Amino acid sequence: MNEFALIDRFFTRMPRDPAVVHGVGDDAAVLRPAPGCELVVAVDMMVEGRHFVAGTDPARLGHKILAVNLSDLAAMGARPRWALLAGALPAGDPAWLAAFSSGLFALADAHGVELVGGDTTKGPCVLCLTIGGDVPEGSAITRAGARSGDDIWVSGTLGDAMLALAALEGRTSLTVPAMDAARMRLEAPTPRVALGQRLRGVATAAIDVSDGLVGDLQHIGVRSQVGARVDLGALPRSPALAAKLGGDERALALQCLLAGGDDYELCFTAPSTARAALSAIGADVGVALTRVGEITTDTALVVVDEHGTPLPVLPRAFDHFA
Amino acid sequence: MNEFALIDRFFTRMPRDPAVVHGVGDDAAVLRPAPGCELVVAVDMMVEGRHFVAGTDPARLGHKILAVNLSDLAAMGARPRWALLAGALPAGDPAWLAAFSSGLFALADAHGVELVGGDTTKGPCVLCLTIGGDVPEGSAITRAGARSGDDIWVSGTLGDAMLALAALEGRTSLTVPAMDAARMRLEAPTPRVALGQRLRGVATAAIDVSDGLVGDLQHIGVRSQVGARVDLGALPRSPALAAKLGGDERALALQCLLAGGDDYELCFTAPSTARAALSAIGADVGVALTRVGEITTDTALVVVDEHGTPLPVLPRAFDHFA
Repeated sequence: MNEFALIDRFFTRMPRDPAVVHGVGDDAAVLRPAPGCELVVAVDMMVEGRHFVAGTDPARLGHKILAVNLSDLAAMGARPRWALLAGALPAGDPAWLAAFSSGLFALADAHGVELVGGDTTKGPCVLCLTIGGDVPEGSAITRAGARSGDDIWVSGTLGDAMLALAALEGRTSLTVPAMDAARMRLEAPTPRVALGQRLRGVATAAIDVSDGLVGDLQHIGVRSQVGARVDLGALPRSPALAAKLGGDERALALQCLLAGGDDYELCFTAPSTARAALSAIGADVGVALTRVGEITTDTALVVVDEHGTPLPVLPRAFDHFA
Repeated sequence: MNEFALIDRFFTRMPRDPAVVHGVGDDAAVLRPAPGCELVVAVDMMVEGRHFVAGTDPARLGHKILAVNLSDLAAMGARPRWALLAGALPAGDPAWLAAFSSGLFALADAHGVELVGGDTTKGPCVLCLTIGGDVPEGSAITRAGARSGDDIWVSGTLGDAMLALAALEGRTSLTVPAMDAARMRLEAPTPRVALGQRLRGVATAAIDVSDGLVGDLQHIGVRSQVGARVDLGALPRSPALAAKLGGDERALALQCLLAGGDDYELCFTAPSTARAALSAIGADVGVALTRVGEITTDTALVVVDEHGTPLPVLPRAFDHFA
């Protein structure tokens, strides 16, 4: 099957969204902007051997390359609309592509995202997805709006993706049910798309937890020129991670909770007057929201342990070129 | 230098375009759409060892990854506005990145394109650029509008990029000045940005010559449900390629002219009543425009040689998975 046949067979569908004027099949896609809205765009790349191991279920890869981008839009409060997919692939294997595209389109359909174009080439397995969406004019949630005294909130639970990775690498062990659950967090994360949009006008700043909580909160701190105090005891965690935090593997558990990348939860700030509203939003969208600390006036990030003692050293966020 | 310092140093600049509401530095970029316009988006990926050889001048790579995308927008008649860059790089080498970003930004500045975001990761050298632009509502030029009797036009000259590649691979020889000229076409192509926008309302269909004229004209043929007759003798060519076409290396020269990828000229169709207008447009934008054939009613693509005889076999377009 040649390059164009591959695209036709696995990646070309009739767009359902009338805002797609021209989709797959031309030099570029043409899209009608929503009235009164600004355009929100992001891109994420995943490299075999770096972001995923060879042999990973292609359906989960298709899901994940879209999920990580949906998460970026969620962190801006944006509604996702369309995507462009570029992929370098070692071979044009129809079975692999069928599974990959089924995973991609299942998540795309769940969020009304149209695949409007892309590029395919031979090469080491590298996936690159660009996502576009919109927000009502002036309502995007940035990293720059956190204010001293704001609560810090986190959705879902933190650290399970890194815990799964540690188990895959033989650095810890998990029961089969715990591993299955953690592995889903690593390979098929759930982007908080509905939550992000509900946070417009409520959250003062937001980021998605992709590099790890400490690093991501530091991004908010730098952009908002504030500091943060995080209560370790309050950080939402799975039962498996909770068990390790209270036992011999506390160092690993701390690393997972504070610097575990790939969680794709939202970390956001909001004034204390928004607590009731946030509680209602969490219930509405079916995502647990947990208050984990407070924005402070200085520019330091402090994590206090269960006894109120600041951790002397914080685990580092993931850095590709460190 | 870590990942975030690299982005800050080489890829973060104050946006000059007030339509960029939020640029580099958040989960996603936020852009204000131009009133009365549709959004036009495309993505292209370049892989080391496939699209360029290791050791290629990084400034030219920075130029080319943007140029190939600008060319896609030009083929739609769109005005380029912004770009997202994702790159997997073997190392965060500051000298390489400085040269790469200088090449990228020189071309971006020439066309008023803002780099509004991206993603960097470690990995085999793979560059992926997404471009966004706009066209007045309903005025995008697609591949689907060619009509029987339309003239077929080509900008600039064809085949020099492939000729340079053949010389680099030792399959032909060129004088130093001819090689320098051909190599610029391969490594630092000139996208026909101004021309593309001037073709709105004049061209009935357009495509950029990235896979080779035969393959790209076939895309127009399929989408427009027409055929084409191309006069080999009319195809615009450099003196170096002309010499080979008339000599021992005619087969190579035919391959370059008809199936040479990477030219990034525009191939477009227009009614014969537009000849005077096109002549004026070519003069205005400083690009030679050559009439090379005619759209026909059947769906075949025929190339006739200098004696009016159809070529029995056409060279194949490049296919990554053939």
